[in-house]
This record gives sequence, structure tokens and C-alpha cells, in this order.
Amino acid sequence: MALLFTVARRSPTPLWRQITQRVAALVDEGTLTAGSRLPASRQLAGALGVNRSTVCRAYEELWALGYLESRPGSYSTVRRPGRSLAPRRPTEDDGIDWGARWSAGARAACDPAFAMPRPPLAGPGCVDFASLTADASLCPVEDLRRAVKHVMAERGPSLLDYGEPAGDRPLRELLARRMRAHGVTVSAEEILVTHGAQQALDLVLRLLAGPGASVAVEVPTYGLIVPLLRLLGIRPIEIGMRGDGLDISRLESVLAAERPSLLYTMPTFQNPTGITTPPAHRERLLALCEAHSLPIVEDGFEEEMKYFGRAVLPIKSMDARGVVVYVGTFSKVIFPGLRVGWVAADRDVIVRLAALNRFCALSGSVLDQAIVHRFCEAGRYEAYLRRLHRVYRRRMEALLGGLARWMPRGRARWTEPSGGCTLWLTVEGGGHDDEHRLVDRAREEGVAVTPGSLFFPAPCPELLAVRLSIAKAKVHEIDEGCRRLGRAMASAC
Amino acid sequence: MALLFTVARRSPTPLWRQITQRVAALVDEGTLTAGSRLPASRQLAGALGVNRSTVCRAYEELWALGYLESRPGSYSTVRRPGRSLAPRRPTEDDGIDWGARWSAGARAACDPAFAMPRPPLAGPGCVDFASLTADASLCPVEDLRRAVKHVMAERGPSLLDYGEPAGDRPLRELLARRMRAHGVTVSAEEILVTHGAQQALDLVLRLLAGPGASVAVEVPTYGLIVPLLRLLGIRPIEIGMRGDGLDISRLESVLAAERPSLLYTMPTFQNPTGITTPPAHRERLLALCEAHSLPIVEDGFEEEMKYFGRAVLPIKSMDARGVVVYVGTFSKVIFPGLRVGWVAADRDVIVRLAALNRFCALSGSVLDQAIVHRFCEAGRYEAYLRRLHRVYRRRMEALLGGLARWMPRGRARWTEPSGGCTLWLTVEGGGHDDEHRLVDRAREEGVAVTPGSLFFPAPCPELLAVRLSIAKAKVHEIDEGCRRLGRAMASAC
Repeated sequence: MALLFTVARRSPTPLWRQITQRVAALVDEGTLTAGSRLPASRQLAGALGVNRSTVCRAYEELWALGYLESRPGSYSTVRRPGRSLAPRRPTEDDGIDWGARWSAGARAACDPAFAMPRPPLAGPGCVDFASLTADASLCPVEDLRRAVKHVMAERGPSLLDYGEPAGDRPLRELLARRMRAHGVTVSAEEILVTHGAQQALDLVLRLLAGPGASVAVEVPTYGLIVPLLRLLGIRPIEIGMRGDGLDISRLESVLAAERPSLLYTMPTFQNPTGITTPPAHRERLLALCEAHSLPIVEDGFEEEMKYFGRAVLPIKSMDARGVVVYVGTFSKVIFPGLRVGWVAADRDVIVRLAALNRFCALSGSVLDQAIVHRFCEAGRYEAYLRRLHRVYRRRMEALLGGLARWMPRGRARWTEPSGGCTLWLTVEGGGHDDEHRLVDRAREEGVAVTPGSLFFPAPCPELLAVRLSIAKAKVHEIDEGCRRLGRAMASAC
Repeated sequence: MALLFTVARRSPTPLWRQITQRVAALVDEGTLTAGSRLPASRQLAGALGVNRSTVCRAYEELWALGYLESRPGSYSTVRRPGRSLAPRRPTEDDGIDWGARWSAGARAACDPAFAMPRPPLAGPGCVDFASLTADASLCPVEDLRRAVKHVMAERGPSLLDYGEPAGDRPLRELLARRMRAHGVTVSAEEILVTHGAQQALDLVLRLLAGPGASVAVEVPTYGLIVPLLRLLGIRPIEIGMRGDGLDISRLESVLAAERPSLLYTMPTFQNPTGITTPPAHRERLLALCEAHSLPIVEDGFEEEMKYFGRAVLPIKSMDARGVVVYVGTFSKVIFPGLRVGWVAADRDVIVRLAALNRFCALSGSVLDQAIVHRFCEAGRYEAYLRRLHRVYRRRMEALLGGLARWMPRGRARWTEPSGGCTLWLTVEGGGHDDEHRLVDRAREEGVAVTPGSLFFPAPCPELLAVRLSIAKAKVHEIDEGCRRLGRAMASAC
């Protein structure tokens, strides 16, 4: 075969990739047809004046891209295109009507009538009170890099094997120790490491509830629990939030009439309200649940984000009878992309959750778990957390000050969180119908907020509310954000 | 406060950790009681002759361990133990009877009557024909390290944010290109990246089946699909395997009578049998499923492990009407610990799967996905795969040779896989009751095999079979393993 191309030695494109591209183009344009044989790698290398390994690499890539036949030790024949290489042209009446094939749970979870619209993204110049993910600009990238390096050096090949379904042992031990910081005494056997808190909730709900069951939830509640419950065919029983936490009397009357599988609650920096329940509320709630043998799923997603006043210990710390299933996560503070959360619960529960985790996911990411372990073990987590406390304390102060300054007197009310990232703002006399207008007007003014209705399993006609988050709003932008929101409110409601 | 301890400068234990340990011991032994104030960090640093930052780090650790009160900027007061720090003493009648609280699905999945006993682990000196995870001794640790380093340098902080529920965009693009190597034309929009193949199957089953539905599965089939179906409340309809793949006539008569939600099949190197169905079988199966609008879930878990003869293109490559939902994974070839798999399917299906993925897990691990992407992009995957082909080809040849040499004539039959890691060995005249004895005897002889009954949804009284895997058996051990298995068979059956 005559040589049909050359390579450019000074090109920024590596030589092997140039060869790949040239050969692919020859096939695509029809110069090389199916069954054509390429020159042997040695021959082509000689003709082009490159190393043979360069040509081999190009041939491997061409094989991977489907241009060459795969046969052991030989990659030199142009492949016959598969039936499907002809463009697929679905017609109206062929194939599967997928829309008719969704399971009932999947349909309910994705039902546009209950859609979880994504909160409006903050554009350039916009003050972002909507995002609730760790602020990447605060990320300790260097510390993370060091942790990764250490882990790769120490654990190399073992990171490549499947992990234990219950999680990496050193991390389970570390988490058990960390729980002591919150007054919770658990052993590593009482810890399950998960792929973030969301997967923890999925596993716990699949273990303890399931299709046809009901679950008591606060309203408003964490927005993404709602489609998860629908997917699982679980009915939410709504328990309203009051100023000091969920309405215990309401829960009491529910329990007199029915038997939910569990209570899902966020006692600390509740999402979306930011409310932290006082210790007395926690004790009453625990006593009620103990009396009814009602498992409490305590979501401590921002447990460590307390920066005003003294921390309140989690309900799990008072849980002498083991009714609390505690869910924690690193994602709200640091590393959302690494996906590491955990469950602390009775050992029986953990053993079953680990079994379900094996059936649903085999195991978590060993690498991610090892990195988080190393990062904490090296003492970087505490250091980072204290830095976050300083930053978020200032931001929350700015937000509370800005609201006092710019909200219309007597019409707006808001919670005063003692930590975490979120605050709940309600507008007197407004209703669900005004929500779109308010959020859109705010957007036009240059401030992104999350519509309150995302946090309810069913629409709430009498309520006009938005969630404000300081996770990504810089301290110097916050007052301006409040001013814009005040303007939006004046014109929309 | 008088200084109660000193630190050892030459100890291998870092100074800050020594301080942590000393103070913790003082609290544990009761010398320091709740409410005691520790010296200010500056003061203690001066007294011990260490940097103040050393003391601060120790105090942070003590706070994290629960020894000190947490209050912003001050960590110097010994904490009052929480209620739970007293050891929990559950009695017979308190707490929750967890065993009575499992959901029906969780109970069925974990039912000991259908237990998935873990295959016997191979001890030292034992030939391991049981494991089916990538051989860590073959792992390209250096290449992996380079990929990690590159990714950390290039993408640093962005790795720390949540990922897209559908997966990292560059990896989706790469996977779409890679599918071309198997004759499948899909775009990145038709790819969903998952947390391994197991999570992909969980999502697909939740989308297309669900409680009360039925699903057609090959028998024997992948062992861990069975508890997953039970957990989801899905009934398996068993379709027997024949020498050339699943029994299409049987599937045809099933479809005449009922309407399963989908067919789950592994046409290439089926687990456990190692059977690869010929192209004609694939075409007939596809035509039947198209005619009945039956979605095919094609599990190509070892698609790229073909090392004898020519590759057979996946059913997905012939799927002009889009009825095939293809599941792939990197875990069987490389990186089980990184948890990266994918689904290639109709765009409607991918959009819904991404929504469910968000509800169940928010997103996959951005870091893992970026590492796999980089590893492949750098051309290392193909190189590694070719090495694996060489190794496994030799191992499979050794296994086939060893069986021919050592199996009792006329009594044992086995499949002859053209790739992958597993082979299916049946013993004529044996039955399910002999299985335990055979596996135990094999163990005593020093060879670990996986009992065949693990691959059936219900016991199969007439069958005595085991799965042999070459994933971890070294080539020089294989003949000896076959000899031992022959001895076990002679004495057990």
C-alpha cells in the first residue's frame, strides 16, 4: 500500500493521534474500504519515521473507535460497518413506546405535575441565594491533592478491588470516632458508609418502608425526598413545622390513628427552614417515638455547620434504645463530588443495609472513601470546618442584616438560623399563585432564590415562601441581593 | 492549672497527637472533669515548648473526638458527657424489634432460604476458581497514578462539586465513541454513567419494571440479579440456557402467555456459563423481542474480554428500533473499586434514568469518572486490555487442558468459552443435594469453586454444577486446581 499521508512533527497533536485521525478520515471518506489491510505497524513506522509503538497506539485507538477489526494480536483490517452504523431512522410505528413502559413509581417520581423544577441558575451579575452546594472557591484543593497522593502511595492496588458493602473499614472507624464529637457512642459495626446521604436515604427507605407504606415527614422538607418517596411508592404523612421544629402534637395524633414506617426529620438547620430544635423538643420527640416504637431517621446533613452559640447534640446522642437511624454526609461541607455519606444505627439495621447496598451497588467507591479518610485523619477536616464556620457566620450575619434593612416591614418574616446555609422567608398575604411571579421578578432584578413549593409534597395554596441559601453568595454581595429581593417583592406581591 | 504532662520530642507520634492522647487520658481517668477549662493554647504551647499551632491542632482533634465543648473560636472546656456516653444497655422489651420492621422486599432479598452465601474464600495454598474480580496483581497502578495526578492538576476544584446525574460529559462522549468499537452507534446523549453495572441494573429495573412486574431472565443467571429482583418485588420468569444461548422457543411461548416488563440477558461470556451466542441467535432473539415490543436489557459486563476467535457484536449493534438497553462496566476488566458503569439506550430512557439517578444518588463520583476518562483518553485502557487478553487466554487454555486431563470421563461436561473469565461445569447424575459436599470436598482438597445453585432464582434439584473462574487463578496453578477438583469429584459424587 502506498503511503497516503504524513505526520506533522511540530504539531501540538501527538503523533499517534495524528495517525488515528488520518486513517479514520481515509475510512470515513471511503478511500480505505472494509477489508482493506493497513500496513504492518513496523512498516508504517518506518515509512513515517516514527517509533513502532506510536503506530501500535494509533492502531489500538482505531480499534477502540471501531475502525479496525478486533482480533488477538492484529489490528490491521478495516472493519465492515455493523448494521447499526447506518443512521437509525425511527418511524412513528416502530420501536417501543417508552412513555408507556415506565413503572408506576418512576412515573410518579417524574410526574411533571409534581415536578422538581431546578431552581433558577444564577447568571453572571446575579446574586446566588439558590445554590446549596459547597462553595468551590473555598475548597482546600491542595489538601485534597495531598490526601489523594498519600492514598495512592499507601494503598495503590488495593484501591482497585471491590470494597466491602458496609464501607472501607478505616473510614467506618473514623466516623464512629467522629460521632463522639456529637455525643453519639457507636462502634464501627454500627456505621455504614454510603454513596452520599441521598443513597443512604434510598437504602433506609427500602429497608424500613417500601411500596404501600407511609412515612411521616416535616413540611416543608428536603425537596429531593419527595420524588424518592414517590419512586418507592411510599405515601408521605405531612407534619407541619413550627418555630421550634416539627409539630409534635400533630405527630401524636397521627400516631393515634395510623402506623407510619418511620419519621424523617432534620432537627438541625432544617432544609429549607434553617430551624434547629431545642434539646427539650428533641427529648419529647424521642420519648414519643420510643413509646410508639417509631424509628426516627435523623438527617444530620449539616450537623457540623453550627457557628452561632452552642451546638445542640443530635437526637441520636440521646438514643438509649436505638430507635434513631442517623444519616450523615460530607457532601454539604466538602467534597460533594466524592459522594461519601454514612448511616449510624443499630447493628441489625447496619447489617441489613450493607446487604441491600451489595444488591443495589456492590460497594461504594473505595478510592473516594480512602481519600475522605485520609483528609480527616491528617487533621485537615477540622481546620477546613473552622474556616467554613468563619465564612458562613459572616455571610449569615450579612443576610440577616440585609433582610432587616430591605424587606418590606410587616409583610416578610424569616427564620434566624444558628448555623447551616439556609433561611426561610415567608410573605404575609401571598399565596402559591404568586410564587412564579416573585421568583421571576427576583431573577429579573438579579437575585436567584429557590421557590418554597419545591419543599412540599403537595401544593400549599396559602403559602408564599422562598428559601435563601448562603452557600455560594459572597459576603459583599449579600446586602445587594437583599435589596434586589426587596424590590422584586414590592413589585410582585 | 498546673501542667500535668509533657511531650516526647523524639517520639514517632506527632506532638499534636501526643497532646490529644494525654488530655484524652486525663479526661477518661477522671482527672479532668466536665467543665474543667484547659489552658489557653498560647499558654500550653509555652509550657510544653511547642508551637501554638500544634496545641490548636490537638484541641481541634479533642473537639472532634467529643472531649471538648464546641463553641466558635474556643475549644478549651471539657465536655459534659451526653446521655448516651453511658453504655447503652438494651433489654429484651425495649427499643425496636427490627426484625419485624423490614420491608417485604428487603425480607425477600435477604431471606436465608434463598441466601446468596458468599462463595468460599480461597485460603493460602488454595487454587482460587471462585473469585470473579479483576486480578489486582495485573493492575496498572502506575498508569492509574498518572491518570489521578493529571486529573487533579487539570480539574482540581471542579471535581469537588456535584456531578451531572447523567454523568461526566467527557466520559459520556468517550463511552459513545468506545461503543463504536462494538458496532454500536450512539451519541453522548444516549449514554448514562452509573455507579457500576449493579446500580445501572437497579435503575433500569426501577424504571421499566417495579413491584408486581415480571422479568424474563436466563437460568442460570448472574447471581446478584436475584436478590435485586426480590428487593424490588419483581418476579423472575426463568428461560433456560442451551448450548448456544437462551432458549428462544421457551421465550416465545412465555410471550404468548404473559407480558414481562423486559428480558435480562448476557449474550457474551454469560455469567456463569461463559456461553457466547452466535450472531444468528442474536438476530432471532432481537426479531422476537421487536415483534413483542419487549425491551432487552443486554448486560455486556465482559464485552471486551474476547480472546479466542473473532468478536461477536452485541445485540445493541443490530438494534435499529431502539429496543435494547445496553449495560456496560469497567469493573470486570479494571478498577472495580472505582465504580464506573454505563447504560447505552434510547434517549428517552436515558433522560428518565438520569432523573431517577438524581433521586436515588444525586450523582456519581465525579473524581472516579474523571480518572477513568483520563485513563482511557491517554490510551492506557487498550494497552491494558491487550495485556489482559494475553493473560486470560493462557489461563483459559490451561483450564480447558486441565479439565480434559483430570475430569472423570463421561461424568463431567463443561462449556468452552471464547473469552471472559467463567466456565460452567456440570456433573452427570448428580443433584442439588450433592452440591454442598462437592464444594466442601473441593475446599478440603485446596480448590475454591462457586456452587452452581447461586445462579438460580429457585433451587434446581436435578442439577449439580459449579462455576469456575480464571479471574484470580494464576496460569501455573490451574492444572493443579483441576487435579484437586477431579479428586474432590471422585470422592464426593
